[in-house]
Amino acid sequence: MGIMEKLFGKQERVNVDEYEELDLSEFEAELEGDSETYIKVAEITSLNEIPEVRRQVYDGNIVIADVAFLKHDKLTLDRVLKDLRQLAEDVHGDIVGLGEDYVIITPMGIKIDRNKIRGTRR
Amino acid sequence: MGIMEKLFGKQERVNVDEYEELDLSEFEAELEGDSETYIKVAEITSLNEIPEVRRQVYDGNIVIADVAFLKHDKLTLDRVLKDLRQLAEDVHGDIVGLGEDYVIITPMGIKIDRNKIRGTRR
Repeated sequence: MGIMEKLFGKQERVNVDEYEELDLSEFEAELEGDSETYIKVAEITSLNEIPEVRRQVYDGNIVIADVAFLKHDKLTLDRVLKDLRQLAEDVHGDIVGLGEDYVIITPMGIKIDRNKIRGTRR
Repeated sequence: MGIMEKLFGKQERVNVDEYEELDLSEFEAELEGDSETYIKVAEITSLNEIPEVRRQVYDGNIVIADVAFLKHDKLTLDRVLKDLRQLAEDVHGDIVGLGEDYVIITPMGIKIDRNKIRGTRR
């Protein structure tokens, strides 16, 4: 995992909320709990993961679905993408492919910008 | 772009907000405007993209930074990741690597779950 190593190196994993969590982690969990939005990564290997993805998006969370495992199972991939499209439509969210392996599904109120941030390249 | 083709096929691109936008797009733009959260994908080819990434995250948006272009420029990659870590810390957001090519940076109030959604495989 090259990027993870780069991000977290030889040191302990950097937790940007370390300071708060030392004192308030449990309290915060009770206080904010479900009101916080999460990004969840789902490894889609079959249709079995779809119900949990659906639950997460209905709960207001963003799911990044890794469909790389289905690249050679076109039938399942088609069905999974159909279900994810329907899910995004049901919650008035958004859905976009990211590279070759990922699909981003968002809940209501979160949209995916189709324009990439790009500098001038060379 | 395999996934994009799968997602959007031969038909017109699916816009899950089509219904609302037919009637309310401009009105909504004024009404909700900046209050909506966006996911933006940034192609990081140098340090030039960092200020725009910073602006987006400070505005409350999520950025998925594609650092694949920097894989063979370790020096720039290290600097970019250092800057992105600092950015996530500054806004009390979160940062995690996604696969080999991507880094997710979130604003305050949005966290990234380290546990993947996984079904039983095989």
